Amino acid sequence: MKLSDEQRESDLAPLIQNGWSLVPDRDAISKTFTFKSFIEAFGWMTRIAIWSEKYRHHPEWSNVYNKVDVTLTTHDSDGLTELDVKLANKMDTLAH
Amino acid sequence: MKLSDEQRESDLAPLIQNGWSLVPDRDAISKTFTFKSFIEAFGWMTRIAIWSEKYRHHPEWSNVYNKVDVTLTTHDSDGLTELDVKLANKMDTLAH
Repeated sequence: MKLSDEQRESDLAPLIQNGWSLVPDRDAISKTFTFKSFIEAFGWMTRIAIWSEKYRHHPEWSNVYNKVDVTLTTHDSDGLTELDVKLANKMDTLAH
Repeated sequence: MKLSDEQRESDLAPLIQNGWSLVPDRDAISKTFTFKSFIEAFGWMTRIAIWSEKYRHHPEWSNVYNKVDVTLTTHDSDGLTELDVKLANKMDTLAH
């Protein structure tokens, strides 16, 4: 179920303060994560991959060396849901 | 060192027959790999990530669920080199 206006206020605002952006023309959020090396970047991706499978919710993401661009949305709901908030928070936590 | 004309003939032609394409406006090749699941796709990416680090040559790649789009070029040489051919062949081999 798509995020309500109240959830957007309470759940998206902190993510946006933490470097996430609303994607133009889609109900989605994106962020670029920068690491010290490819090993660090892909190591983080690997941890997120396992969480994604566990959550049954997967990111759109691209990687070039030490950078990972992530876009989150819920295709089945055609927009942002609580799953995106959960995965975004996990990504931020594990990137520290 | 960028691929010579002879190497393009001998090394790129088989890759193109195997589903790789020349990228417009860049001296690069790309291919979309499709797997049965996210686990299969990311498992393949993980194996390639380790080979990439070993080769000291990394792909540009993006993943959405069971699909992985790959672009290969050698930034230091501003175009295709033997490293790209080596990594492309490894990707094809491990995708089977």
